[in-house]
Amino acid sequence: MTERYVHTPPEGNFFEDFAIGRQFLHPTPRTITEGDASLYIALTGARQPLPCSQPLAMAMGYRAAPLDDGLLFNMAFGKTVSDISANAVANLGYADLRFLEPVHAGDTLTARSEVIGLRPTSSGDNGVVYVRSSAFNQHGRPVLTWIRWVLVHARARGGAVGEAVVPDLPERVEPADLRVPAITVDVAALVRASGAARLWDDYAIGQRIDHAAGMTLDETDHTLATRLYQNGAKVHFDAQMMASTPHGRRLVYGGHVISVCRALAFEGLENVIGMLAINGGSHRAPTFAGDTLYCFTEVLDKFALPGRADLGGLRLRLVGIKNRPAAGFLAEVEEGGKVRFDPAVVLDLDYTVMIPRG
Amino acid sequence: MTERYVHTPPEGNFFEDFAIGRQFLHPTPRTITEGDASLYIALTGARQPLPCSQPLAMAMGYRAAPLDDGLLFNMAFGKTVSDISANAVANLGYADLRFLEPVHAGDTLTARSEVIGLRPTSSGDNGVVYVRSSAFNQHGRPVLTWIRWVLVHARARGGAVGEAVVPDLPERVEPADLRVPAITVDVAALVRASGAARLWDDYAIGQRIDHAAGMTLDETDHTLATRLYQNGAKVHFDAQMMASTPHGRRLVYGGHVISVCRALAFEGLENVIGMLAINGGSHRAPTFAGDTLYCFTEVLDKFALPGRADLGGLRLRLVGIKNRPAAGFLAEVEEGGKVRFDPAVVLDLDYTVMIPRG
Amino acid sequence: MTERYVHTPPEGNFFEDFAIGRQFLHPTPRTITEGDASLYIALTGARQPLPCSQPLAMAMGYRAAPLDDGLLFNMAFGKTVSDISANAVANLGYADLRFLEPVHAGDTLTARSEVIGLRPTSSGDNGVVYVRSSAFNQHGRPVLTWIRWVLVHARARGGAVGEAVVPDLPERVEPADLRVPAITVDVAALVRASGAARLWDDYAIGQRIDHAAGMTLDETDHTLATRLYQNGAKVHFDAQMMASTPHGRRLVYGGHVISVCRALAFEGLENVIGMLAINGGSHRAPTFAGDTLYCFTEVLDKFALPGRADLGGLRLRLVGIKNRPAAGFLAEVEEGGKVRFDPAVVLDLDYTVMIPRG
Repeated sequence: MTERYVHTPPEGNFFEDFAIGRQFLHPTPRTITEGDASLYIALTGARQPLPCSQPLAMAMGYRAAPLDDGLLFNMAFGKTVSDISANAVANLGYADLRFLEPVHAGDTLTARSEVIGLRPTSSGDNGVVYVRSSAFNQHGRPVLTWIRWVLVHARARGGAVGEAVVPDLPERVEPADLRVPAITVDVAALVRASGAARLWDDYAIGQRIDHAAGMTLDETDHTLATRLYQNGAKVHFDAQMMASTPHGRRLVYGGHVISVCRALAFEGLENVIGMLAINGGSHRAPTFAGDTLYCFTEVLDKFALPGRADLGGLRLRLVGIKNRPAAGFLAEVEEGGKVRFDPAVVLDLDYTVMIPRG
Repeated sequence: MTERYVHTPPEGNFFEDFAIGRQFLHPTPRTITEGDASLYIALTGARQPLPCSQPLAMAMGYRAAPLDDGLLFNMAFGKTVSDISANAVANLGYADLRFLEPVHAGDTLTARSEVIGLRPTSSGDNGVVYVRSSAFNQHGRPVLTWIRWVLVHARARGGAVGEAVVPDLPERVEPADLRVPAITVDVAALVRASGAARLWDDYAIGQRIDHAAGMTLDETDHTLATRLYQNGAKVHFDAQMMASTPHGRRLVYGGHVISVCRALAFEGLENVIGMLAINGGSHRAPTFAGDTLYCFTEVLDKFALPGRADLGGLRLRLVGIKNRPAAGFLAEVEEGGKVRFDPAVVLDLDYTVMIPRG
Repeated sequence: MTERYVHTPPEGNFFEDFAIGRQFLHPTPRTITEGDASLYIALTGARQPLPCSQPLAMAMGYRAAPLDDGLLFNMAFGKTVSDISANAVANLGYADLRFLEPVHAGDTLTARSEVIGLRPTSSGDNGVVYVRSSAFNQHGRPVLTWIRWVLVHARARGGAVGEAVVPDLPERVEPADLRVPAITVDVAALVRASGAARLWDDYAIGQRIDHAAGMTLDETDHTLATRLYQNGAKVHFDAQMMASTPHGRRLVYGGHVISVCRALAFEGLENVIGMLAINGGSHRAPTFAGDTLYCFTEVLDKFALPGRADLGGLRLRLVGIKNRPAAGFLAEVEEGGKVRFDPAVVLDLDYTVMIPRG
């Protein structure tokens, strides 16, 4: 099986190293533990009840407390970095991310990727690489799958050439493609645990929820998180190297921004059971230590979940903002007849969750 | 059971929202794990032997290593914040805190509170709320109970009105009310583990112990601790919001100050088995990142523990100080005929421990 | 058994307190958990596969994932500090460190030391203390043993007197003295996990590997690590005390520097199964928060391991550097006919690992 994979050199892969169909088995397999789950809470402040309470999770049919979906995503994503994005200029976007099966402390995660698209830029100094990545548990069953695309440096100036192959990127994960775990919803127990009564019926399409809490990031918390995920991208860790870049300092890993914003968004979304999909997302501006994150949520859509009378789906837009409270903040601003994002927007995430119908 | 509780809105409760007898079932139940225990050591430097050593704990009749009492207290306290003190001006004091049963990794904690007192201030802009809070394990048995009182903003200017109801606050927990766990004391094993021979007989009422070690706090360690406890009070996390307050920056959560001071007080109190009670306590001044904590202990009282020839009780006063070593430090200073606390005092805690009689 | 040990006073031992043959049973025994292992990854970024993956470790004959050898070393070392180096001027060196048996989450570590050498300096204000320290698991079996020597203050000025007794310090651990655990090497599984194919046969004596990654240290990560190891040396924690020293600020614990450098050295040494020995090592210059660590590895020797056709030994030199990338960096510089270390060198570690022969 090893033979199918060409190993990535220590300096990482450049645009020229990617070819449609090339596959990667990413290092390092990781047994996720209760220690990782504790650190996730300490790093983000996550308060969603199911990953916190073993008895609640078991009462709802999980075999143990499920890992927070943000922890799972970041652990899986971290594995892909050394092969895919060690030489990335920017992480451009995510699509078609689906959670396929709950993961619990004690499970071991591995990850694989396949190149599904390539698009050189006009200069040829870099190009966009599209990969489909998936994470598997110790039984070989997929637990998470996603597409991301990254702008990657060419090894040689002008070396990024060739025909553009751009994969089909679904605008959203269709409800029929969502994988709802076989759980038993105990609304009363969940509401007792979450401290709030809002359920699927209480949300309206178009509704906006301004989350009041803010979280200031410091150098150690984002570097601890990124090391925990074994994401070795130098831009997050090497302040000396970053001092000579336009940023001037270490960049906060975008996955940590997602996790912190989701934790801030607990108030108003208390009974969300978990993520089913990320329809799309992008990191609009860099985040640095010292920035305070705020966020708001827009309800983009609500729909039934196939075969479930007890659960509904909500499609949500989570907008993360730096140094500007959410109340009254407009993400898009019109300027000279054009609509552009406010430069304070750091995250724009379109995702789907399941929540009891009440 | 849900029906008995009125949910707290996202903005938290104000003075007007509290009424004598109102009960709260706090979110989020939490299965405490070995990961939380590791983080507690990393955050505080705690070295008390029993929570560290599974074989020692089992040799002394615990069913597993007990969680550090500071971790338990902070986990339980953290749950009460969103309902009780989200809009607190200040946390005024604690009384009648009792540890009722050891808690171990794998146990799940929930917490409830009841309003037992209300006292509007003369301006009516805020008032004191007294609550009795208790934490329970997964079997529904209480493991910790305490009274605290908090100065809480009124929702409306002058809205804090009504008759004052001030509960009876015991000056200390009576020895007969202390709950000593059914453990078997192995003095030799404990002394081998702690590295010190001092036992109950070696302490004298009035004795003062200056703990030599100091601990400088940084932004990440106090915010990690406070997030670990899922205490979401904004004053600890939102530097941007705090910049416009008189403090100018994030406040360190008082429970973290208690935990750090107790860890510093290990030297001199090495064979303390655990806390039985907090008789009273107050946070005298704010602590900020950059402050170095020091502390000293005074032996206020020593007494037999009901039914135990092998264990004695010590009532201790732990005084936490910022930026001034403990040796020679006087907590109370006389100024113009009046006694007041030195402004470097950040913590004044009166608590009771059990320790082998030797 | 307690009676054999004289307890260390709270202020620690001074040179006069050490005598050849004096033994210490160090506090505090510690059950190492999955929480500690998670924190170790978050603090260092370690990616060596065996401690990360339960299935891989079990496929290779371990009874569970082994703890990272750096975590084990630091946990064991931390215990010795209060008795041996609380009053150290400097930690001068290590020799004859041998890993004797794998340690797993759930095992409980204790440590003992014996004074094996004493050498007063000419001023008599301090002297060198040589100790042999060993860590044991809960079955009383030794898992790690090492010699270190420390420059320790005299209690009284000029108090460090007496005959010099300097133990024999082996230049290296002989291959015949290495303890190779009874594991089954599965090269294909290891290579799949590590993402690299380099094995014993691919390394050459004299080869140098410049590790490209750098890691900037912050105050919280080094203090979290040092507290996790329950190493209470004041120089790492008390910024106020350190402000009045020539350093002006907290010193980073040398064991954390070793751990971070080993994690940076993953790239290029991916299939190393674990450390067998540290032949020698020294901390050449202090490290502070804000420094960025880089490192390179030199292959000093390669040899067969007794009785193992499947594993080979590599003797490696790991040089840690602050604020200067590894590529092209020379550790030793000639100046006026003399060779001295570049002041950017913070660590010079000579250690032996096992790696599949391929």
